Amino acid sequence: MSKKLTKRSEDYSKWYNELVVRADLAENSAVRGCMVIKPYGYAIWEKMQAELDRMFKETGHQNAYFPLFVPKSLFEAEEKNAEGFAKECAVVTHYRLKNDPDKEGKLMVDPNAKLEEELVVRPTSEAIIWNTYKNWIQSYRDLPILVNQWANVVRWEMRTRLFLRTAEFLWQEGHTAHATKAEALAEAEQMNDVYADFAENFMAIPVVKGLKTESERFAGAEETYCIEALMQDGKALQAGTSHFLGQNFAKAFDVKFATKEGTQDYVWATSWGVSTRLMGALIMTHSDDNGLVLPPNLAPIQVVIVPIYKGDEQLAQISEVANELVKDLRAKGISVKFDDRDTHKPGFKFNEYELKGVPVRIAIGPKDLEKGTVELARRDTLTKEFVERTAVVEKVEALMKEIQENLYEKSFAFRDAHITTVENFEEFKDVLENKGGFISAHWDGTVETEDKIKELTKATIRCIPLDAKEEEGQCVYTGKPSKKRVLFAKAY
Amino acid sequence: MSKKLTKRSEDYSKWYNELVVRADLAENSAVRGCMVIKPYGYAIWEKMQAELDRMFKETGHQNAYFPLFVPKSLFEAEEKNAEGFAKECAVVTHYRLKNDPDKEGKLMVDPNAKLEEELVVRPTSEAIIWNTYKNWIQSYRDLPILVNQWANVVRWEMRTRLFLRTAEFLWQEGHTAHATKAEALAEAEQMNDVYADFAENFMAIPVVKGLKTESERFAGAEETYCIEALMQDGKALQAGTSHFLGQNFAKAFDVKFATKEGTQDYVWATSWGVSTRLMGALIMTHSDDNGLVLPPNLAPIQVVIVPIYKGDEQLAQISEVANELVKDLRAKGISVKFDDRDTHKPGFKFNEYELKGVPVRIAIGPKDLEKGTVELARRDTLTKEFVERTAVVEKVEALMKEIQENLYEKSFAFRDAHITTVENFEEFKDVLENKGGFISAHWDGTVETEDKIKELTKATIRCIPLDAKEEEGQCVYTGKPSKKRVLFAKAY
Repeated sequence: MSKKLTKRSEDYSKWYNELVVRADLAENSAVRGCMVIKPYGYAIWEKMQAELDRMFKETGHQNAYFPLFVPKSLFEAEEKNAEGFAKECAVVTHYRLKNDPDKEGKLMVDPNAKLEEELVVRPTSEAIIWNTYKNWIQSYRDLPILVNQWANVVRWEMRTRLFLRTAEFLWQEGHTAHATKAEALAEAEQMNDVYADFAENFMAIPVVKGLKTESERFAGAEETYCIEALMQDGKALQAGTSHFLGQNFAKAFDVKFATKEGTQDYVWATSWGVSTRLMGALIMTHSDDNGLVLPPNLAPIQVVIVPIYKGDEQLAQISEVANELVKDLRAKGISVKFDDRDTHKPGFKFNEYELKGVPVRIAIGPKDLEKGTVELARRDTLTKEFVERTAVVEKVEALMKEIQENLYEKSFAFRDAHITTVENFEEFKDVLENKGGFISAHWDGTVETEDKIKELTKATIRCIPLDAKEEEGQCVYTGKPSKKRVLFAKAY
Repeated sequence: MSKKLTKRSEDYSKWYNELVVRADLAENSAVRGCMVIKPYGYAIWEKMQAELDRMFKETGHQNAYFPLFVPKSLFEAEEKNAEGFAKECAVVTHYRLKNDPDKEGKLMVDPNAKLEEELVVRPTSEAIIWNTYKNWIQSYRDLPILVNQWANVVRWEMRTRLFLRTAEFLWQEGHTAHATKAEALAEAEQMNDVYADFAENFMAIPVVKGLKTESERFAGAEETYCIEALMQDGKALQAGTSHFLGQNFAKAFDVKFATKEGTQDYVWATSWGVSTRLMGALIMTHSDDNGLVLPPNLAPIQVVIVPIYKGDEQLAQISEVANELVKDLRAKGISVKFDDRDTHKPGFKFNEYELKGVPVRIAIGPKDLEKGTVELARRDTLTKEFVERTAVVEKVEALMKEIQENLYEKSFAFRDAHITTVENFEEFKDVLENKGGFISAHWDGTVETEDKIKELTKATIRCIPLDAKEEEGQCVYTGKPSKKRVLFAKAY
């Protein structure tokens, strides 16, 4: 615990990796690319889930559950989707192990238990779900279907990093079916708005809402809405995507419905998801060289109370005050922990909760008892003040809002200072190299130019912002005419 | 919707299968043995999860998440556990698909992407978790570890049935680590008590708490606590298990800790789980020939309001009353749906909610408007009465408790009438054949006798009840001396 974290300025990537492990959020497992999400990290994910789930239900969605496995023949039905994921599929080929006759106490795959058809561990569930929807949809009366699933998925990534890119990850995937194109498009945009709302108001992360270019779109989608966030190292992170799938999956799985007018039409689809990757975004956006910084709206422990005492008598006196505070704070819906462990010193505890990003720390010592005060420390600003004991609850309630807002404003200011408008490719490269962040530039709309820029700079088009103004301009690379600026960045 | 369910008395098994599908709870998928849990079924599961999760947290547990895959070498480390599950393991052998050169548009497993070590899709997570705990535990200060995981698991069952036995199912698995045997035993028993509490107070299912015999124990456990329920067809259903694992996994994964006294000792373990199988128990315990019957504590919709009207004007008047009721009931924490769909007639709706087991139905027609009443129907008793509009909220609140209690009492009475004490093997076979239910009988304590009885009758020892009295007796099969009665039954 005493060893300091690597500083962000020294090695941002190392800082992140250390922080995730030392703040007890997650760790690598014995399975290549798969992580263990530890209780403290999982508690944050649970808070995210609860809020998102509430938002999904408020917008009319219900949860359901579909199989983990996708038979290969279904998986390959929508060709673009299949092509997009084929290279990273974990495949189940056998359904039994047996004793290895050559190795005492060891097992081997039983060659007699080979599956007739291989099963793909879902990298995403469009195929298995649309094969199911086929039986649920006959008429316009069966539409819309507004379903979400909380699940694990597997994508066999070669280079993995805790939360940001793991072979198995947890996510939610919404899959909706609609009678009209307009309705499906509206749904896709609505869910992207829900993600933006969640990112900004719960994660305290400002995001740009936009559309992906063709080459960055989800495999099988006609349009991909996204929210893009900016990390402290100037790299962008795609925090959520919402896809308008057109009739692609309906056609692949032959899902038609009788319209109000009595004709037959293919069903329109959307899918949308956010994953444990959000944990990475949360960690990287707010944290500092002392450790994690959590917005109160997602902190499993919002307030920690640490007693500073010598001997049992003092502890008893302090505990009385502390327990009173715990009760009063909980009555206000604030999650609070009184850490009266006698195995660790106050300094150790201070470091621990700083590392773990607890928004407010209250320390109570013998002098506080005399004066009727407590010492209150903010994790976001690292400032301390003495507060009258009678004023603590009100003060903490106000701080919950204040810290939440401060974190958002701070990251908004950083993000705002890191959207740079450039007019030519020299500027583009200079900003990318020396400043980082989003680069707002004109682009000629071709995949070739996009690819070339990526090849030369490693920057990709993060999105075409939904609020991009119409303006005459020239592509930053080819000089060809353009009518809108797009956002480039290096990305996670 | 009009077609009647098969009656329980005609074909209990067929009744169950039809009910699960027609009440929109679940259906079979394109993947052998894997089910789709539909929104209505999943909503019940979510209510179960929420209650259980609260109970786990109240007893000091935290959630975490461990990998879906278990490398074969870890899986085989605890030999009994491995042997117990080896025959039903889905195995991932490859991590990539590629285009099939012989079949345009088709994919095949890429032979160049064979894993060096096969990965078992977790049938249970002791192996991967104890391999992780190894790094978390050095000293007694790191104990206890009280962790739970909500997850999907896969056991390749040959004969599957919706909810009761599926290749993939959802469950929670608690995995705890302790410094002493006594503490681990107490934990295992505590969690079995939590399950019993949940079954009785939320599912309204009476259960017998007991211990499994050696041959029915979890593979790798030293003792398995269980709760056993009785279905309407007289067959028993194991609803939850909690295992004392001794030091077996600690030894298999070499997990030692420094004791308070400065010595080294292996860590003591428990694991405990309930699964979507509980859905099967819930359905089979309370439902009738008209469809599902749900206890109010787990019903996603506790009250449905159906308007009976001609024309828009009447609907508007009824809606005013209904919306007021909705508001008042929700204020009391009651989940209520006002079904004002104009695409379906009241009779259709009545059938639908009966089939779906909604505990209370309120119908409001023009005469009710005149009289200031509503018609209130109970799903459990199928009785109806008129209630003054001003008394509805209070009445419904009372009914929520009354129905919950009535369902429990009804199933308790049934269960009680189906525990039959027998003294010899003729009686045993007679009761099993003609009455069903639990048979309370003496047993000589040997695996041989247990096996023989199973072979002859298909009945197994469901448990040795925790509250079994010490009494002198003779084994129902061998006549050898016995000191306790055990419960036999045919089981799901």
